[in-house]
Order: sequence, then structure tokens, then C-alpha cells
Amino acid sequence: MSGEMAEQPERLRDLIARTDEVEATVQRVAPRPLLGVSLVARGSSDHAAVYGRYLLEQATGKAISLAAPSLHTLYGVRGDYEGQLAIAISQSGRTPEIVTTLRRLCEAGARGLAITNDGTSEIAQAARGVIDLEVGEERAVPATKTVTAQLVAFAQIAMALGDTPFSRDELEAVPMWVQQVLDDPQPARAAAEALVDASHLIVVARGFLYGAALETALKIKETCSILADGYSSADLRHGPIAAVTRDFPVIAISAPGPAADDVLDLVAELRRRGARPLLISPDEEADISLPQGMPETLAPIVAVVRGQQVARALALALELDPDSPPGLSKVTVT
Amino acid sequence: MSGEMAEQPERLRDLIARTDEVEATVQRVAPRPLLGVSLVARGSSDHAAVYGRYLLEQATGKAISLAAPSLHTLYGVRGDYEGQLAIAISQSGRTPEIVTTLRRLCEAGARGLAITNDGTSEIAQAARGVIDLEVGEERAVPATKTVTAQLVAFAQIAMALGDTPFSRDELEAVPMWVQQVLDDPQPARAAAEALVDASHLIVVARGFLYGAALETALKIKETCSILADGYSSADLRHGPIAAVTRDFPVIAISAPGPAADDVLDLVAELRRRGARPLLISPDEEADISLPQGMPETLAPIVAVVRGQQVARALALALELDPDSPPGLSKVTVT
Repeated sequence: MSGEMAEQPERLRDLIARTDEVEATVQRVAPRPLLGVSLVARGSSDHAAVYGRYLLEQATGKAISLAAPSLHTLYGVRGDYEGQLAIAISQSGRTPEIVTTLRRLCEAGARGLAITNDGTSEIAQAARGVIDLEVGEERAVPATKTVTAQLVAFAQIAMALGDTPFSRDELEAVPMWVQQVLDDPQPARAAAEALVDASHLIVVARGFLYGAALETALKIKETCSILADGYSSADLRHGPIAAVTRDFPVIAISAPGPAADDVLDLVAELRRRGARPLLISPDEEADISLPQGMPETLAPIVAVVRGQQVARALALALELDPDSPPGLSKVTVT
Repeated sequence: MSGEMAEQPERLRDLIARTDEVEATVQRVAPRPLLGVSLVARGSSDHAAVYGRYLLEQATGKAISLAAPSLHTLYGVRGDYEGQLAIAISQSGRTPEIVTTLRRLCEAGARGLAITNDGTSEIAQAARGVIDLEVGEERAVPATKTVTAQLVAFAQIAMALGDTPFSRDELEAVPMWVQQVLDDPQPARAAAEALVDASHLIVVARGFLYGAALETALKIKETCSILADGYSSADLRHGPIAAVTRDFPVIAISAPGPAADDVLDLVAELRRRGARPLLISPDEEADISLPQGMPETLAPIVAVVRGQQVARALALALELDPDSPPGLSKVTVT
């Protein structure tokens, strides 16, 4: 896991260098007119899809849906997906229900695009176009470099489909920000020390960073066997906050932008309730720093790396092996 | 909460008696051709939307999306929602971000439908048509009768938009099944005894029952201040299962149908891992029974009532007041 995390700046730089090629693939595959986009994924890939959902809705203005695979694999729904771009995301390209769901959506009229780390996989064959991440084999069970590459791929897809809230120069700076996080592991170690007695925790963010909260929570669950759940700060206020009792550990992720006030207000409220929030942010008062100057809409890629680092540091503090969590395998059959 | 739970059979019967009227409203509002449906909700209403998503995708064959309100309230995305039916769900009809999001989607071309317990509320005024649940004022903070009424409303909307996997006779039997659950509180009390030492738990289901798992988890969080999270059984296998350690309490919800095998297999696997799953199901071997003979696609309405009962029993076992959880208010401003 550590080695694969360390590869991320170089792997992301290579993928970003292929942005023109990726954009051409997307433009060739996308239906015209584009009526909507359906995203098909599970696990970490699904968190990349949650990030992609925000970017693609902003770029296209169209309704973006996250597919419910069981409708297609268990319930045999006959759909009409004419005019839809169906994007399936799977690092192995072999998760059976993702392959089946992509096939069904394409049979129903969607144009299929695959984001995968294996350009010869079943999902690549089922799609009309492929974004091959080419980040090299991933051997640790917790996905790291494939996830950040999927996030970058969504940024590239958004550039191909419309206006993006970041520039190409800013996208090209992402590997440097990731490197800054990797070069500065101390904040993650300090966070791990603060969390080492936690039996459960939550991770909150809002808007573009929501997917990063979900992914950080999953990494902690996978590597530390601790129940960690990701919430939107808005959803948390609609009931779940009742479970955030005294000394409850919380990780909040924020970056300057339209969603920041809401997350910072929540952190202040959680402190008043006696909870123990740790803030991941570029802000001065952050407990766990992020690089300065990132647009909020690209910050999730960098925040995910900080989350990986916190999860791994916490696993090591708990004397667990983050590479091979008990009871997990690299390709999940559902 | 107890009184409002007890009203459910009668209130649902009244709403079901208005099915023709509801169908007429939906048919008047829905765009033709219908290109898709967008659902706008938070909290318990969002869990009704998750159930609605399965029913509406089966009825229409179209991509159904759950809106990300922040895109419209914080990021000012300019959308093109021509041909979309936008359904906003809010018991009070006054949650500001839900009202704003519905307005924005309608400005972008969607036709708006509101599901609310206040037919004069802002959300009702922002919509072209209203399904007024008319279940009477709900005073307990944890929503109960408004949630099951929202689920029934989605069943009615699905009937208006296409084929449903249940008959009208079966829908009319729902209040009777709900009454059977309410008349038999003993299984919920036994579950509460088994869960009384839990500091966290998860609730799993799959497919149509997934929304019931999310809602049961929320009811437990709200009334018991215990971190309880809902998962699809497929999502749980994609990583989170690593957090399900020895003696971990799990509630699994199942009913005979295409998703049952997957959930029952998961329960067996959780037992092998030493976890403590409690099965809510009509099966003989269930720990917490459900009525026999329900179609899987209507079982969520009845399962939600069982979940309310478990949450309330657990709150009482913990000597908490389920009607007024600490730090929650009836209308949440986000």
C-alpha cells in the first residue's frame, strides 16, 4: 500500500499527460444530444463516481445518476437508456455485476465508457470506449493509486463534456500537491495517535469533497477494522448527528470554496457538543494540513491521498497489516 | 412516537384510498415524453426516495437520479432538466435547501411534484402538483407515519407511470401487514435486549429493501444515539465488511424475492465471522418476524415499521426519550 501510494504523483502525471487522448475517446463515445450520464461502480470506484457526479453535472447540466446494479442483475429491469452515457468504473474490470450492469445499459441504448486499470478486461470489452488508467498492477487490497487515477479520469471526462471549474494548468498541478502530502506524513501520524482508541468514527465533507469523505471512511474500515462512515455535512444534520456523542471522533474535510462554511460551522457545532473533530484542510487552523492554493473542485484528489495516509498510519498504530485486511479479496463477486 | 406509529394503518389506508386521485396528479404533472426522474430529499425522506428510485426505474425504464442539492444551492449549476420529472420529498415542506433545489430544477425545465404532509407549504407552492400525505401533524422528532406514507406515495407514483411489480390488491393489504407488526411488539423487544450493549451497529439489505435498511439505521441513530449505518449487502462486501469484527451487531432485512439469497448468504457469512446478525424477515428462521405473503417490492413499507419498533424499544431499554432526541429539531436548516 505504501509503495502504491508513493507512485501516485508519477502515475497521475502520466495520465494527465494523456488528457487530449482521453478527451477524444469521451467525445467519440458520448451520444449527441447527451440526455444524461449513468455511473456504474461499487466500493472505492463508487466514491470516484460520487466525485464524478458533481463534476459531470456541473459540466453538462444534465441529471447524473448512480446506477443501482441490482435492478439490472437481480430484477431484470428493461430500461430505455437512449441518449445516456454509461460510465462503468472498476480497477480490475472484472467485477461481475459491474460488467453485467454496463452490458444491460448498453443493450438499452446507452453508449458505454469504461474506466479501468486493465484495458483488455471484460468491462473494457463491453464498452465502446476505454480510459485505461495504466497505473500498473495494484497488489494491496485497499485501492489507492487506482482511485486517485479514477478521480483524475473524471476530471478529464468533465473537460471533454463541458466547462469545468478548474483550469488545465490546475489539473496539471495535482501531482505536485499529491507529492506535498506524501512528503509530509507527520500530520497523518499525529491523527493516528489521536484516533488510536476509537472503536468507530465518522468522516464528513460536503459537495465536491463528499466523495473524499466516503473514500477516507472506507480506507479506515478496510485497513483498521474500525466502523468509519462517511457523511455529507448536510445529511449529518438530518438526524445522524444525534449519534455524535461526547468524545466521538470525527474527521472533517474542507477546502476554501462554496461548501467550506457549512463544514466549518459543523466542526464548531461538534466541538460544542463535546465531540473530537479533526479537520483536514488547507486552513491555518487545520489539524491535518492540505496544500494551499488548490481549487475546491480538485482538492478531493489530494484529500483522498491524505485519507489514505491517515488510514495507513492508524492501521500501523493498531499493529495491523494494511496491505491484507482480514476477510477481503481484491476482486469482489456480488 | 408510539402514538404516531400506531396511527399508521389508518393513515396509510386513507392515502391508499386516494390512489386514483394521486395517479391523476402524477399523470397531469409528468412530462411527455418522460426522459428521467430526479428525486430531491434529505434524511428519512431521502430513504423514501431510495425506495422510490427502485420502483420508478422499474416502472419507467428511465435513469432515476437522486439530486445532489449542494450543486443547486451552493455551486449554482445551470442545468437542463427538460423532460425530467423532479419529485421533492419533505414532510414539513419547509426544508430550505429542498425548496431551493426543486425551484432550480423547475427553472431548468423539470416538471415539479411535491410529496409533503403540508399541502400549503413552500415545497407544495414550488411544485406543479402535490401529493398531500394528510397523515396529521407529526410531533415526535423521529419521523414515522410521514415516512411510511411517503413510501406508499412512491408506490402510487410508480402505478401512475408504468407497470409495478405488485397489484393494487397487494398495495391495499399494506395497512393490514403494518397492523400485524404493531400488534406483535415482542420480537422488537427481544431485539432491543440483544442490542442493548451495542456501541455501534450496521443494518443491511439489498435492492428494494435497501431504503428500509437506511431508514432503520437512521431511526436507531436518532432515538438511541448509537452509530448505526445502513449498507447494501453488495456494498458491504466491497470493503466495509472488514470492519465487521467478532460480536459486531448487525441487523439484516430480507423478504422472499430476487435479493433474498444475497442477504441470507451474507448473514451466514457474518455468523461464520463471529458477528451477531439479527434477521428481520418473514422466514421461519428470522430473529424478528415480518408478516407472510408480502411481495418483496412492498415489504419495505412494513419493514420500516418493524425498524421503528426496534429503534423505539432499544431507546426505552437505554432509558432514553425517543420522542425528543438530544440536539435534533423537527425542521433541519442546511
